[in-house]
Amino acid sequence: MTGTAIGIGVGPGDPDLMTLKGARILARASVIAYPAPEDGESLARRIAAPHLPEAATEIAIRMPLSADRFPVEAVYDRAAEEIGTYLDAGQDVAILCEGDPFFYGSFMYLFARLAERWPVDVVPGVSSLTACAAVSRKALAAQNDILTILPAPLPDDVLRARLETSDSAAIIKVGRHLPRIMAILADLGLSDRAEYVERATMEDERHVALTDVDATPAPYFSMVLVHRRGAAWA
Amino acid sequence: MTGTAIGIGVGPGDPDLMTLKGARILARASVIAYPAPEDGESLARRIAAPHLPEAATEIAIRMPLSADRFPVEAVYDRAAEEIGTYLDAGQDVAILCEGDPFFYGSFMYLFARLAERWPVDVVPGVSSLTACAAVSRKALAAQNDILTILPAPLPDDVLRARLETSDSAAIIKVGRHLPRIMAILADLGLSDRAEYVERATMEDERHVALTDVDATPAPYFSMVLVHRRGAAWA
Repeated sequence: MTGTAIGIGVGPGDPDLMTLKGARILARASVIAYPAPEDGESLARRIAAPHLPEAATEIAIRMPLSADRFPVEAVYDRAAEEIGTYLDAGQDVAILCEGDPFFYGSFMYLFARLAERWPVDVVPGVSSLTACAAVSRKALAAQNDILTILPAPLPDDVLRARLETSDSAAIIKVGRHLPRIMAILADLGLSDRAEYVERATMEDERHVALTDVDATPAPYFSMVLVHRRGAAWA
Repeated sequence: MTGTAIGIGVGPGDPDLMTLKGARILARASVIAYPAPEDGESLARRIAAPHLPEAATEIAIRMPLSADRFPVEAVYDRAAEEIGTYLDAGQDVAILCEGDPFFYGSFMYLFARLAERWPVDVVPGVSSLTACAAVSRKALAAQNDILTILPAPLPDDVLRARLETSDSAAIIKVGRHLPRIMAILADLGLSDRAEYVERATMEDERHVALTDVDATPAPYFSMVLVHRRGAAWA
């Protein structure tokens, strides 16, 4: 009997925002895997920590700090092989994913490798997108609004064109791009329609109007929400 | 002491996809409110049913089948007043929301009314967006992809322009617009990059390639996911 790999969205930060299904699978998991930095703590593991069994085998998938694609591919190849040895032995493996597994996550790279040879299930989670909306106390979009998700590393002209034509936008992966994003929004006259949310639902979460933010690099887990139509629909 | 209104995302359909936080709040709730059709069962209540206490007071916010805005506004006005009587009496009121409260939901209309006078909390939930991605077994977006959320009732030319310029798109509220959406995607040469998901994570969920769907009206809870770049990033 082959085991099943189960990608579990652990939610945006508050451990209580994990789903009942995710928590139940984790509580009986004997093998868990999770993404981690080259050194230091895994955020996905930290979020899931209250729900982990004590005696599970843990596989930390440590990602080198490299802009090069080759070492990253090799890490996923090796991780899939390691997870596969447990699956071949009939053990299920729970794979922790920050937020939701399929919303801009790294899980897809493992999924592509594992699904070729083993059964893989996916348990969706609360994404940073809706967590930031809850923290900002504003709806992301309503009725026939167009909502665009824009990764901040995109070029200025691409971001400008999309921001000008979206009713609502969520700019993700803001991090060191914050000063550039602020300049673009100011230029488009949208600064006072924008809000900044950092580490949504975590203990040190922060939410302020974009006009109250310093134009300095932000943490990776930060988002700028833009509502072009303001509260027209409220 | 004033009570607090708490908007709770109950998730996309599977009751087990509610969050631990949502379930815990519901289990001790003495008053719950939820959107419902003019006649018949509330979907939000059905999803939350396994987590509801037996003796709670229930407020069904019944929406008339009307394209007219005025009666809808009046329904929300009355619902906010009714919820407010419990809040004034010091009782918390849990408000059930399909999926996530702030992702194209009707909760925002109650929120706007209640937040003027009473404390309101928002508990995010798993949205239909990430639930459909999990069911389709494909990532919504990766890396610097632009992901666009497009309500199906938008005019053809708007949908065409956005579909031509998005790496990924999720067309929501498909329902009776399915034949039109299929024609647009065929015309853009995107039919074989699109998938159809109906009632994601519910017992009668359905997921097929768009090319295998009949061009007939679909249920309201259906979505078309389009991946222009295919598996280029996988």
